[in-house]
Amino acid sequence: MTHTSTSFDQLAEHLRQAATLESIGSLLNWDQETYMPAAAAACRADQAALVSALTHERMAAPRLGELLSACERDPSLTGDPHSPIARNLREIRRDYDRDTKLPTELVAELARVGSQAQEVWKDARAKSDFAMFRPWLEKMLKLSAQKAQCLRTSSHGELYDALLDLYEPGATAAQIESVFTPLAERLGGLLRELGSRSRHPSSAVLNVPFDHARQHDLGQFVLRAMGFDFDAGRLDVTTHPFCSGMAPGDTRLTTRYKDQGWTNALYSSMHEGGHGLYEQGLPKLGQAFGTPLSQAISLGIHESQSRMWENFVGRSREFWSWLMPHAQKFAGGSLSGFSAEDAYKAVNQAKPSLIRVDADEATYNLHVLVRFRLERALLKGDLAVKDLPGEWNAAYKKHLGIDVPSDKVGCLQDVHWSFGLIGYFPTYTLGNLYAAQFWETINSDIPNLSSLIERGEFGPLKSWLNQKIHAHGRRFLASELCQDITGKPLSADPFMRYLEGKLRAVYR
Amino acid sequence: MTHTSTSFDQLAEHLRQAATLESIGSLLNWDQETYMPAAAAACRADQAALVSALTHERMAAPRLGELLSACERDPSLTGDPHSPIARNLREIRRDYDRDTKLPTELVAELARVGSQAQEVWKDARAKSDFAMFRPWLEKMLKLSAQKAQCLRTSSHGELYDALLDLYEPGATAAQIESVFTPLAERLGGLLRELGSRSRHPSSAVLNVPFDHARQHDLGQFVLRAMGFDFDAGRLDVTTHPFCSGMAPGDTRLTTRYKDQGWTNALYSSMHEGGHGLYEQGLPKLGQAFGTPLSQAISLGIHESQSRMWENFVGRSREFWSWLMPHAQKFAGGSLSGFSAEDAYKAVNQAKPSLIRVDADEATYNLHVLVRFRLERALLKGDLAVKDLPGEWNAAYKKHLGIDVPSDKVGCLQDVHWSFGLIGYFPTYTLGNLYAAQFWETINSDIPNLSSLIERGEFGPLKSWLNQKIHAHGRRFLASELCQDITGKPLSADPFMRYLEGKLRAVYR
Repeated sequence: MTHTSTSFDQLAEHLRQAATLESIGSLLNWDQETYMPAAAAACRADQAALVSALTHERMAAPRLGELLSACERDPSLTGDPHSPIARNLREIRRDYDRDTKLPTELVAELARVGSQAQEVWKDARAKSDFAMFRPWLEKMLKLSAQKAQCLRTSSHGELYDALLDLYEPGATAAQIESVFTPLAERLGGLLRELGSRSRHPSSAVLNVPFDHARQHDLGQFVLRAMGFDFDAGRLDVTTHPFCSGMAPGDTRLTTRYKDQGWTNALYSSMHEGGHGLYEQGLPKLGQAFGTPLSQAISLGIHESQSRMWENFVGRSREFWSWLMPHAQKFAGGSLSGFSAEDAYKAVNQAKPSLIRVDADEATYNLHVLVRFRLERALLKGDLAVKDLPGEWNAAYKKHLGIDVPSDKVGCLQDVHWSFGLIGYFPTYTLGNLYAAQFWETINSDIPNLSSLIERGEFGPLKSWLNQKIHAHGRRFLASELCQDITGKPLSADPFMRYLEGKLRAVYR
Repeated sequence: MTHTSTSFDQLAEHLRQAATLESIGSLLNWDQETYMPAAAAACRADQAALVSALTHERMAAPRLGELLSACERDPSLTGDPHSPIARNLREIRRDYDRDTKLPTELVAELARVGSQAQEVWKDARAKSDFAMFRPWLEKMLKLSAQKAQCLRTSSHGELYDALLDLYEPGATAAQIESVFTPLAERLGGLLRELGSRSRHPSSAVLNVPFDHARQHDLGQFVLRAMGFDFDAGRLDVTTHPFCSGMAPGDTRLTTRYKDQGWTNALYSSMHEGGHGLYEQGLPKLGQAFGTPLSQAISLGIHESQSRMWENFVGRSREFWSWLMPHAQKFAGGSLSGFSAEDAYKAVNQAKPSLIRVDADEATYNLHVLVRFRLERALLKGDLAVKDLPGEWNAAYKKHLGIDVPSDKVGCLQDVHWSFGLIGYFPTYTLGNLYAAQFWETINSDIPNLSSLIERGEFGPLKSWLNQKIHAHGRRFLASELCQDITGKPLSADPFMRYLEGKLRAVYR
C-alpha cells in the first residue's frame, strides 16, 4: 500500500486510536472472564461502559467523516476501485455510515431493554415459562426492526438483510436460504440413512479419566503444532470458551476442562485456535491497525477458520493417527487400551439432539437452519411471537425428527435473541460451508495434505490460510473471496460431499 | 458526608470518571506484569499512553477547576475546615494545582529523557560504568529541579520539598532529617553491638526445599488469616512483587517464588498484603471513588501498613509460634526438623550488606538514609554528580561499615533516579517509623495482641487499622494522623525500642 495522502494518514491515525481504545475494552472483557475478582463486577461495568462510549465517540466523530470524504474525493486513492486502499476506504465508509446511522437513544434503549430481557430470559428458561419471556422478545423484535430500518440501504432486499449485514457483510437472507434449502434436504437424508444402521461407534474412549492440567498440556501441544504463536497469545480457562484477537501481538484463547469427555476441551481449544490463527494472521501492524485491511471479513469466514481446524483437521482419521500416541502420553495410561481408530470413530458420531451447543457436525446446521428461518419470519411479521414455541417444535420434528419436551430445551435454550442478536445464527453454518468449499481447494493445492496431517505437519495448511485468506483483511467480501479462491459461489455441495463421505465410512 | 451541593456532585462525578480511567491504566499495567504475551508490548505502550493522556486530560480539565472553585465558595461545604467534605476539597485542590502547574512540554521531556536515561542506566549498571550514566543523571536532575520549581509553593522550605510533597504530602526534608539523624546514630550503635556477638542465628531453616505451588498455598493461607478478601482481590506471580488497589472491589497482589529461601515469598506476600488491606479498607464505593477520601494518605503511611504485617507481625515470635505447624504441613516434610524458634531467629538476622533490596529490618533504613541525603544534596547543588560515587562509598563506610567494591553494587544499584524519582526513597523509612509508632498504640489499645497473634487471630488488629487509618482516606495528613493516633509527632524512638528489644534478645 503506497500513497502520499496526508488525509489518509490522518484517517488511519484516527482509526488506530479508536482501535487502541477498543483493544482496551477487549482486555477488560477478557480479564472479567478469566481472572477478575467477583467484587470488581460493578466497577468493571463502569470501566467497560466508559471505554465503549469513548470508542464509539471516535468511530462516529464528524472529523472522521471529513477525513473519509477527503480521501474518497482523491483519485490517487480511489481511482482504481479494486486497489487495496480503495477497498479499505469502501469498508471504512461502510463502518462509518453504520456507526452514524443509529440514533443514540435507540442504541441506549436496545442496551437497556436487552439487559432486562436477558435477566427475564434466564428466569424464564429456568422455569421453562415462555409466556414470561414473550413480551420481552416482542419488545426486542420491535427495537431490532427499528434498528434494521435505520441501517437499511438500497442493497438490502428485506429488513433482515440490514441486521445480517452487521455480521456477514454483503450477504442476504434470500442467498442464504438458497444455500440452506438443499443443505437441509441432503442432511435430512443422510441422518435417516445413518439412523438406520445397526452399529454405532462407541464413546468409551472419550470417557477415560484425564487430569485437567494434562488436558491443558495436550491443548497447548496441539495449538503449537497448528502454528499458534504463544509469544503473541495465551490459553486460559473460562466457563464459555472464546478467542479474543484483542490487539497486535495479543490473541487470547480460552477453553474449559471437564472430568468426562476430554475431547471437548481439545476441540474447543482447536476451534478457538482456528479463530486465533486468523487473528494472528491479520496484518495488524503499523498504520494498518484499526483499518478494515487489518480486520476479519465476516463472522462466517471467521467461523470457517475455527471449524476447519476443529472438524476438517481435528476429526479426520489422519489427525488421530498422528495425535493418539501423544494423547496417550498426556493421559498417563488411561488411553492405553484404545486405538486411533477408536477415537476417530467416537468423535464422528451423528445423532439428532435437542441442544444446539451439544450438537455434532452433521446435526448442528439443522439447529442453525431452524433459528434462521424463525428469526427471519419473526422480523418480517410472518410469525407472531406467541406462535414461536409451536413453530419451533414443529421444525425440530420435521428436520431433526425429535419431539421437544419443553421450551426450556426448545425455543428458550439460546440467550441470543434476548439481547437482540438477530441475523447472527446463520454465520455458524456459513462457516461450515465456507470451510468445506475452501477445504476442497486446499486439497487440490496441497495434494499431500493428508500425509502431512498424519505426520502432524500443519505448516503448509497454515501458510495457505495465511496467504489466501488472512493476509487480505477485509479487502474482499466473503462472497468475492469464495469466488476468487474456489472459482465458484458458495454452495452446500462441498460440505455434503465431505460429510457423506466421512460419516458413511464411519457408520459402515 | 451529607450535602446538597450540585457542584460537588458534578465534581465527584468528574473525578469518578478520571479514577475509572486511571483504574483501567492499572489493569493494563497489572496484565503487562502478569499474563500479557511478550509480542503485545508495543501495543500495550500505546494503550497505556492513551489512557494516561485521557486521565490527565480529565484531571487537569478547566471544567474541574470551575467546579472546584464553586465548591470552595460554598460555605455549606467549607464552613467547617475540619469537616470531611472541606478536607476532601482541600485535597482535590492540592491535586488539581499539581496537575495544572506542570507545563505539558516539561512532562513530555521528563518522560522522554527518563525513558532514555533508564536504558542507559541498565547498560551502565551492567558494565559498572558510572561515567556513562553521569550526563543522563545530570539531565534528569536538571529537569527534576525544573519540575520542583513549577510545583513549589510557600509551604516548601527548599526545592526538594516540592518533590517530596508528591509522595509524602506535607512532609519537608528538614523534618525528615530531624527524625533520621537520631535514627542513624542509634542504628549504628545497635549494629556495632550485634556485630560483636559471637553467636549468630542459623539460616538452615530458610533453605529447605519448598515447592512453589505449596509456597503459593502458604501465602494464600496467611493472607486469608490476615483478612485479605480474595473475593475482592488476587495473588499472582511477577518478577517484582507489587500491590495494585486498582479499583473498588479489585486489589491485586503479586509475589515470586524462589527455590532457596521460602520466607522471601511469604514476606513479600505479607508485605503486599499489608498494602492490600489498606486498599481494601479505603472507602471507595459510590460517590467517594476518585475523591481523596477514597485514597491513601501517602506512600509513607502505605508503607507503614505493609511493614507492620511483614515485620511487626510476621517477624514476631508469636507469629512463628502460630505459623510453624502450618508451614510444616505446606512444606510436606522438609521443615520437620525445625522449631518455631529456629524460624523466628533465622528471619531476624541483622547484618550490613551492599544491596538495599536484600537488606534486613535493621540495616534497611541506613540504605534509605544514604539515598535521602545524597539526593537532597544533589538537588540543592551541594553535591556534583561527578562526586556521587565517592560520596556514596564514603557514606556506606560510615553508616554500614562496609567497602563498596564497584558502582554496580554501589550508586548504580537502583533504577529510581534514572527516571527522575527523587524524593521517594525516604517514604520507605517513614513507613517503618510510622509502623513502630502505631504499633505501640495498638498494643496499648489491644493489650492481648500477642496472644491473639499466637492463635492466628488477626481480626482485632485488622479492625483497628480499618477504623483508625484506612477509613479516613486522605482526610488527614500523615503528621496529623500520627499525632491523632499516638498523641505525639513522628519520632525514631518507638522503632528503635522495638528493634533493640527484639534483636538484643535474638542475638543474646
